[in-house]
Amino acid sequence: MSLLDLDTDQRAEFAARIRKDYEELQARNLKLDLTRGKPSSEQLDIGNPLLSLPGEGNFRDKDGADVRNYGNLKGIRDIREIWSDLLGVEYEEVAAGDASSLNIMFDLIAFAHSFGTQDSERPWSEEEQVKWICPVPGYDRHFAITEKFGYEMLTVPWLEDGPDMDAIREAVKDPQVKGMWVVPTFANPSGHVVSRDVARQLAEMETAAPDFRIIWDNAYAVHTLTDEFPEVIDVVALAREAGNPNRFLHMSSTSKITFAGSGVSFFNSSTDNINWLLGTQGTRGIGPNKVNQLRHALYFGDAEGVRAIMRKHASLLAPKFSRVLEILEKNLGEYDVARWTEPKGGYFISMDVLDGTASRVVELAKNAGIALTEAGSSFPLHDDPNDRNIRLAPSMPSVEDLEVAMEGVTTCVLLAAAEKLGA
Amino acid sequence: MSLLDLDTDQRAEFAARIRKDYEELQARNLKLDLTRGKPSSEQLDIGNPLLSLPGEGNFRDKDGADVRNYGNLKGIRDIREIWSDLLGVEYEEVAAGDASSLNIMFDLIAFAHSFGTQDSERPWSEEEQVKWICPVPGYDRHFAITEKFGYEMLTVPWLEDGPDMDAIREAVKDPQVKGMWVVPTFANPSGHVVSRDVARQLAEMETAAPDFRIIWDNAYAVHTLTDEFPEVIDVVALAREAGNPNRFLHMSSTSKITFAGSGVSFFNSSTDNINWLLGTQGTRGIGPNKVNQLRHALYFGDAEGVRAIMRKHASLLAPKFSRVLEILEKNLGEYDVARWTEPKGGYFISMDVLDGTASRVVELAKNAGIALTEAGSSFPLHDDPNDRNIRLAPSMPSVEDLEVAMEGVTTCVLLAAAEKLGA
Repeated sequence: MSLLDLDTDQRAEFAARIRKDYEELQARNLKLDLTRGKPSSEQLDIGNPLLSLPGEGNFRDKDGADVRNYGNLKGIRDIREIWSDLLGVEYEEVAAGDASSLNIMFDLIAFAHSFGTQDSERPWSEEEQVKWICPVPGYDRHFAITEKFGYEMLTVPWLEDGPDMDAIREAVKDPQVKGMWVVPTFANPSGHVVSRDVARQLAEMETAAPDFRIIWDNAYAVHTLTDEFPEVIDVVALAREAGNPNRFLHMSSTSKITFAGSGVSFFNSSTDNINWLLGTQGTRGIGPNKVNQLRHALYFGDAEGVRAIMRKHASLLAPKFSRVLEILEKNLGEYDVARWTEPKGGYFISMDVLDGTASRVVELAKNAGIALTEAGSSFPLHDDPNDRNIRLAPSMPSVEDLEVAMEGVTTCVLLAAAEKLGA
Repeated sequence: MSLLDLDTDQRAEFAARIRKDYEELQARNLKLDLTRGKPSSEQLDIGNPLLSLPGEGNFRDKDGADVRNYGNLKGIRDIREIWSDLLGVEYEEVAAGDASSLNIMFDLIAFAHSFGTQDSERPWSEEEQVKWICPVPGYDRHFAITEKFGYEMLTVPWLEDGPDMDAIREAVKDPQVKGMWVVPTFANPSGHVVSRDVARQLAEMETAAPDFRIIWDNAYAVHTLTDEFPEVIDVVALAREAGNPNRFLHMSSTSKITFAGSGVSFFNSSTDNINWLLGTQGTRGIGPNKVNQLRHALYFGDAEGVRAIMRKHASLLAPKFSRVLEILEKNLGEYDVARWTEPKGGYFISMDVLDGTASRVVELAKNAGIALTEAGSSFPLHDDPNDRNIRLAPSMPSVEDLEVAMEGVTTCVLLAAAEKLGA
């Protein structure tokens, strides 16, 4: 029954039992980590053929260029073709880079900040104040970038089918609002997926700033936990049709497909935006790591090759997500002090605990040897106004460790709730 | 005899002969390229073992970390040890990155521009004007970066043992002068080497700006054309001893040791500077491509392994440089209309032709199917005030093509000189 419905004596009895559970938990001297969305060793093993690719003698791309030498800012045809096919977007509108799409996202903002976009009246650094829309809960590393540049972050809530469009439409009436973060597929941390309808509204809405940009970080575009792959929306085409061709900066990478920090990143956007980015990338350097692009193209073969790899990842990840959800339901379901998302893909489960107890849950877990992502980390400036959200990252530990950790976490959730309710 | 000493008739006769040579040159319909300092296919072949490294089963660094996963902004011990040993600098003062040291140089300036250095009173973007010292002739891609950020570029001449210290000491009295480019070893394009004495003067000199930085781009630190390797000066230690610990940003990379765009870059500087860089790199991303770092560490083995590779490069490059110098001497030596450097390493020969004729030489060569680096490209804003300097890049063509190209280039030099002298 709901913890909220217990009378004082029942609560005291409940609290005593949970305190005992917690003491037993502490006595186990655990050392478990649920903090980050890192792939496990078993997942990384899937990519081991990459360790000896492209293989001696393989150093020419499809266009005959020697990938061992300098050049080609936009990346080699081999990998760009596979990726545009996988995403279902225009080949010419995809550039391939080094390992990290986060690097490109930072640079997109850094270049707009120092030099302005092609649609800007001035560099963003010369604006009195730049504001940025941040759907919450969201990805901490996104918010860290806009924080670094001193941008005011306007939070809008995530709804089931995407960020709250009414709040966004209101916000973009302000010309200081220059952009927005969004993880459209299996969002970090909720696992929500932006619907085609919301994507179209984002493409079509009027914005006061002529250089308004949506960083559409499709980090989990093909990262399903089931047999089905989500639809990848060609937002660049949607925006072109809506007369806002430069609106979307569609990012993705192989980071949780092959190896985490040594894959290939992709930038899908209007030719105008790609030329704008490469214009400054061409001052910053001579071109991406093309040997690594060829290595990946040979490993994937084609878009179906990527999907085959993702099915292997799903077979390792899905049991972990299931087990977490089972334990949450088993231990917390009846007490009405927590709710959580049930994602069909991605790397996270977002859990809301009793208001005002998230920090305490993380502290209790830490004191029992279970590292959770810091409370508030899915919010700009790490400020969760309700102190309620906790991001769970089930990918890295073994199923056995995960079970132990989650049994512990649920004890902490209940103990924090009991404390909060004065028991 | 010197072209300048000929009388009118002799000049006319000379000009007629050279015009005929040029017509014959044009008739050959050449298509040769001496523009960029790219390694040749034969040089790239040296690195082919990298194409199947690190090899299946090799994914742990010396510290036991799985290089396939996220993390480690400073780079793995394996490659940092080899590199600090090779350069003779402190291990703790070396960070290893992705392929491009130019990327890091851009970022160092971009981060100082947007956020300021730890020694800055404010972000450089908020200075009324930032000025930057540019020894000339120098590296075009350096100048393109400071141009991009709108910095005023102050040229100082290269002397035999380094950039002109008197001019530099005068320039740094201005607090708007925030930094300086220099390629200390086998400089692009002159091949000059900065002496230990000049390096010490740079370390010791007083500067009005507390956040003055020297980007010490040691791109050719071990790129000898002889059996001898140049001394690598530990400028970070020199500057520490001089009480200016954060002055030098010492850059290098494997770009012309292994593959050109897919190697490992290195940043050697004070711990304070490394922490400052990694502070923002940690917002920009999660870490460098560590698989590629391990790949390189396994390929090199140790510092002596790097030197062994460089001897192979020298055996391919030295005959090309020799042939260029022989043809220059044979065809131009007696006429007193050109002088050139005779580098002991690096990728370029710097040639000064008769004042006011460099653009014409490049144009004549182009019209005969020989691509030379654009005249002026070794100067900020591509402005060679004397229109005299031409950068020759002998690395890429075969010796046979190089001979044909250089015979042609010398014809163009003589024809342009004859035209200039009114013959």
